Amino acid sequence: MKAAILTVGDEVLIGQVINTNAAFLSKALFALGIPVERVITIPDTEKDISAEISKAMSVYDVVVSSGGLGPTHDDITVKCIAKVFKKKLVLHKPTLGRIKKIFERRNLPAPANINHQAMMPRDAVMLDNRTGTAPGILMRKGKKIFCAMPGVPHELEYITSNGLIPFLKKHKGSKGRVLKQRTLHTIGIAESLLSERLGDLDKLLLKDKNSSVKLAFLPSNYEVRLRITIEALSAAKAERLMKRTLGIIKTKAKNFIYSYNELPPEAELGKLLVKKRLTISSAESCTGGLVSSKLTNVPGSSDYVMAGAVTYADAAKVKILGVKKNTIRKHGAVSSETAIEMARGIRKLAKTDIGLSTTGIAGPSGERPGKPVGIVWIGYADKEKAYARKFIFTKDRLRNKEAMSKMAIEVVRRELLSLQS
Amino acid sequence: MKAAILTVGDEVLIGQVINTNAAFLSKALFALGIPVERVITIPDTEKDISAEISKAMSVYDVVVSSGGLGPTHDDITVKCIAKVFKKKLVLHKPTLGRIKKIFERRNLPAPANINHQAMMPRDAVMLDNRTGTAPGILMRKGKKIFCAMPGVPHELEYITSNGLIPFLKKHKGSKGRVLKQRTLHTIGIAESLLSERLGDLDKLLLKDKNSSVKLAFLPSNYEVRLRITIEALSAAKAERLMKRTLGIIKTKAKNFIYSYNELPPEAELGKLLVKKRLTISSAESCTGGLVSSKLTNVPGSSDYVMAGAVTYADAAKVKILGVKKNTIRKHGAVSSETAIEMARGIRKLAKTDIGLSTTGIAGPSGERPGKPVGIVWIGYADKEKAYARKFIFTKDRLRNKEAMSKMAIEVVRRELLSLQS
Repeated sequence: MKAAILTVGDEVLIGQVINTNAAFLSKALFALGIPVERVITIPDTEKDISAEISKAMSVYDVVVSSGGLGPTHDDITVKCIAKVFKKKLVLHKPTLGRIKKIFERRNLPAPANINHQAMMPRDAVMLDNRTGTAPGILMRKGKKIFCAMPGVPHELEYITSNGLIPFLKKHKGSKGRVLKQRTLHTIGIAESLLSERLGDLDKLLLKDKNSSVKLAFLPSNYEVRLRITIEALSAAKAERLMKRTLGIIKTKAKNFIYSYNELPPEAELGKLLVKKRLTISSAESCTGGLVSSKLTNVPGSSDYVMAGAVTYADAAKVKILGVKKNTIRKHGAVSSETAIEMARGIRKLAKTDIGLSTTGIAGPSGERPGKPVGIVWIGYADKEKAYARKFIFTKDRLRNKEAMSKMAIEVVRRELLSLQS
Repeated sequence: MKAAILTVGDEVLIGQVINTNAAFLSKALFALGIPVERVITIPDTEKDISAEISKAMSVYDVVVSSGGLGPTHDDITVKCIAKVFKKKLVLHKPTLGRIKKIFERRNLPAPANINHQAMMPRDAVMLDNRTGTAPGILMRKGKKIFCAMPGVPHELEYITSNGLIPFLKKHKGSKGRVLKQRTLHTIGIAESLLSERLGDLDKLLLKDKNSSVKLAFLPSNYEVRLRITIEALSAAKAERLMKRTLGIIKTKAKNFIYSYNELPPEAELGKLLVKKRLTISSAESCTGGLVSSKLTNVPGSSDYVMAGAVTYADAAKVKILGVKKNTIRKHGAVSSETAIEMARGIRKLAKTDIGLSTTGIAGPSGERPGKPVGIVWIGYADKEKAYARKFIFTKDRLRNKEAMSKMAIEVVRRELLSLQS
């Protein structure tokens, strides 16, 4: 079975909205063994929507659309479905009741056009939406499946996980090939050098006529991810191939891999901190709170993140963290010495095992002699030692904040694992 | 002129990578008056890539691809371009020289396959890439333009802004219709109620045979954006229509609009703080540093953001911010009283005009009687007053952090503008 996704909406075509819905749907369908072969974004016009639904239904087994189910004049997907599937629009009473209840619970007046959102193609099956008004709309045509989803991401995610995926699981049964995937995250090595290090891929990527192993390199902000995709006739065979491939990659590039589970750096660090029963606090200048925000993105992080300080102004570094005025005068706020005193200061203030600090120049301005935009000193302190490491990233403020924060977390991970860095 | 974007890459089709490149390209092309009519994501296979390039070139004036230009085995876009345009691949010496220099500057050994990345279709024009190895590859076919970009976002962005857009500007000339767009950001009103408030859209969206006004509703995390799109024969006419439309919307929904410029809330607040010469500091519990990180995303924010504290643990709230132990014991850490003491505490510690605080339950666990996951108290303090406001968001940790932080910033904005909230 193969799938296509149709994203409806001018807001995507003009670049105002990033298509996260397609990524979510693709992941969910892939995990079910239904790979997505096309994602097509189309304008909010009846002609385009109807044409692409028809075309996709003639090629793919499963077609999922997102967007155009809302209450306003530019929401016309339902009309197009009715046309393509040749079904009349009829008032779907349970949907109307559900929408009315939502307004009641929020203590809001019901809008005059409330019936409009409950007009559905005859014979459509509704997939429940507990996070908003528009339900998922499921249509069958022979063995093929079409499903329309609202475009609001959390609504689409709810309906996909609770309605569409369970339905497709039943519909598909257990026949077909098994797909298995793992992604390893590396940091601190260029894509081409990583590729060279892994060597002859034909040897690594064993293939026979019933199974295949694919490897993809995905560079992004100071990371390269390695994605392994296995296709085989049985789960056991896929598992064996995965183990073999992972083993080979590990022997060749182990030191650069920080995660084997698609977990972000902060989640990997969190696991380590919990295992070693260590607590952490952060003192940030250039990253402005992003290190702390990342650390606390992890559910349960309140067990090991005690406190953080964002000391943007020099006076705050002195007053809150106890950095010596003289250190800043002599070496500057952006220096190894200041970074170390910040890390020590927050560690003492928050009474944690580890203190982590950042001080640098996020940009776009602020460059000083010998201190380019993108420079950061990352400070580390525990009860035995303290040190700082320098990195230079880009000229872009937001990318710098992201890379600096990620690297600060990586500095602690490497320290805890005694990795060479 | 109309455009299509082809995104190449299995990583997008399996949902591992979100297609931010398409959004960036769409925005840049739209601003030039070349609307994108399709974005199509295709697998990393020669057959699919070649077929979609051919098809798109037969329909659209400008076709831009992204991805598949890297140094590894799964990068095959160049091969496909050569095939579709019937051009031989030849070694492009300036590109080879440039790539070699990149490795030298980074003090890295050049990989053995370095020539591979410099093999280009004969007659192709290279668009310079100063942020990575692969250049943009420009091909002409009659009046039609094809351009291949690397998939790494910052490289694609550099080449688009510095190579493709200047080229297309020249190529296109000044003929054709004028497109103008504005997006208003609203907060605190449901999509359907906002629509109702705006009333009869046919009256609002004046149309004649030479110009059109479109309005789109874009709901996202606790916001609804209103996008106005004007198409007209001259810039002056488009400007007049924009002014008229803006005027009507303002009279009907002004209180809910926090930005007229696609600026994020923190940038709008930053402008206000600079104008009023006020400084701010933040004390965060449940948002874990995200309020502070958002405030410092704005270039120049070091002028008004002095410091922030992330006081995750109760002990940190007491020690760093001076929250009274008794307040936490009596009312709990998640309470109006604690929020107010946090805001007052950070204001005093950082010596700022305004203190802003958050204390709540981000989830997924931590629910207590009367305090559901998603609850947040936002505290505000200045020299004259202090208060806290309660909001309840969702059950999702990351969405809660985002919504709570955005709302904290909005609380300050409304205070500074003396808006009813």
